[in-house]
Amino acid sequence: MNVAAKTKPQYDPEFTANVINATGPNSNPRVAQVVGSLIQHLHDFARDVDLTVDEWMMGVNKINRAGQMSNKQRNEGQLLCDVIGLESLVDEITNKQLIGADYEATKTAILGPFFRHDTPSTTKNTSIIKTMPKDGEVTYMHGIVRDAATSAPIKGITIDIWQCSTNGLYEQQDPDQAEFNLRGKFTTDENGYYGLYCLRPVPYPVPDDGPAGELLQLLDRHPYRPAHIHIIAGSDMYTPLTTQIFDRTSKYRDNDSVFAVKDDLVVDFEPIQGNPKATLELVYDIRLAKKDK
Amino acid sequence: MNVAAKTKPQYDPEFTANVINATGPNSNPRVAQVVGSLIQHLHDFARDVDLTVDEWMMGVNKINRAGQMSNKQRNEGQLLCDVIGLESLVDEITNKQLIGADYEATKTAILGPFFRHDTPSTTKNTSIIKTMPKDGEVTYMHGIVRDAATSAPIKGITIDIWQCSTNGLYEQQDPDQAEFNLRGKFTTDENGYYGLYCLRPVPYPVPDDGPAGELLQLLDRHPYRPAHIHIIAGSDMYTPLTTQIFDRTSKYRDNDSVFAVKDDLVVDFEPIQGNPKATLELVYDIRLAKKDK
Repeated sequence: MNVAAKTKPQYDPEFTANVINATGPNSNPRVAQVVGSLIQHLHDFARDVDLTVDEWMMGVNKINRAGQMSNKQRNEGQLLCDVIGLESLVDEITNKQLIGADYEATKTAILGPFFRHDTPSTTKNTSIIKTMPKDGEVTYMHGIVRDAATSAPIKGITIDIWQCSTNGLYEQQDPDQAEFNLRGKFTTDENGYYGLYCLRPVPYPVPDDGPAGELLQLLDRHPYRPAHIHIIAGSDMYTPLTTQIFDRTSKYRDNDSVFAVKDDLVVDFEPIQGNPKATLELVYDIRLAKKDK
Repeated sequence: MNVAAKTKPQYDPEFTANVINATGPNSNPRVAQVVGSLIQHLHDFARDVDLTVDEWMMGVNKINRAGQMSNKQRNEGQLLCDVIGLESLVDEITNKQLIGADYEATKTAILGPFFRHDTPSTTKNTSIIKTMPKDGEVTYMHGIVRDAATSAPIKGITIDIWQCSTNGLYEQQDPDQAEFNLRGKFTTDENGYYGLYCLRPVPYPVPDDGPAGELLQLLDRHPYRPAHIHIIAGSDMYTPLTTQIFDRTSKYRDNDSVFAVKDDLVVDFEPIQGNPKATLELVYDIRLAKKDK
């Protein structure tokens, strides 16, 4: 009888290879590669922590409940990925691959679940504030969009901007906000200029009444995101950039619950002089990478 | 400008550590360990295959749909894990940990989704066939339950047995089968004996009309399980054993869609002489590990 100190159990060393090798010859090679790697890493995870049946079943239940909670307004599976940094990581991976490393385009950040494809186009220097909150600080946001390789200003770039109101809710979450409140779609002029009036953003919690919220609680973490404004910029000629810009002074800037903050995306809201429409100014230039062809 | 051949992109080397280190000091240590390892392995997976946003979102959608499809009769999240071998792996891990390695108990196999907790108790040598299919082959299944350490027969072990009918359906899936058809709960007598009449099992496909079925198709794999009978055996004194036994002659024995077959669990159905109630005999002894205390 073995009386040595208990060592880590040894599991069937061929099991994972057998599962991966069950993939048939007619599988798409990329599918076979991705799923094969996922199987390897999930099995390694289970062995590394000696995952029990009960623990695994708790995970299955969380995932099933995330799906049951998801609908057109809410994607809980995505949110579960977001709070473990997975969306930020695949965003970084995708954009490194798209753009290459020869020059610096504006950094990307995750899309998040609140983008609307149907925001109407607006003329330059319009306000996107349709429902003004009492504590809103109006900001004149503007900048020049440039080609990342040549620094030349680019005309005709479409810029989608969206943000939540000072109560932390996006318009589709809040019956008291007008439709398309705090959303606008602009086009750069011949000088590459875009400009609009928006609110100074505020921090807000991601929805924390589902499995993602439970996970945050289990990990002793808060659900808050630092104050940010969402941007998508692009055109037929330029790779669309999806990003977020973050207020330097915002709480949670150093511990975003979904890990989207990058140093290059931190911006300054400054007092503005001589503009009766706004109390703050935000200057933000954007550098876009040209599409390969 | 770098004109060398394209190399693998380098991603932020601190990102994963930052996500794991966001876990707060009041998190349960086991939760922090398990989730931390899951984050590490999922991030490593994403980097290993350069996972794109679109590919990740396809995965999120599959998981959300698995949850939406799950209910009391069906657990699609579990089935997704099963077809990538994860339930079989955590079953092996859990049982290695419970039992230790000083002696050989009967090997375990996954529970699967068709067990019922409420099967009524039956006396020995009863038939569990309540609805006889035309092509059924009646089998006299019996054996002795022994202590894995001493080989002594054990009295009073509860044995739950369940199987599908020859159409590949369990009774709760099939309105044409009587309730509790092909389910029985037995207790070993003073000689450790259990015995019953059941059907020779047949192969059947796991439900393949959801995300798990789509995954099998993407991987160019079939959904079939080899012919098997489910067993749970245990008592207050003996660690409950959940297992399945597989017909040696069954199709798919070497490529079970959920990877549950182990060599020790393969059994032989033999012609029987002099028993008017059955045409086949299956002798299957079980070795149980005593609980630690």
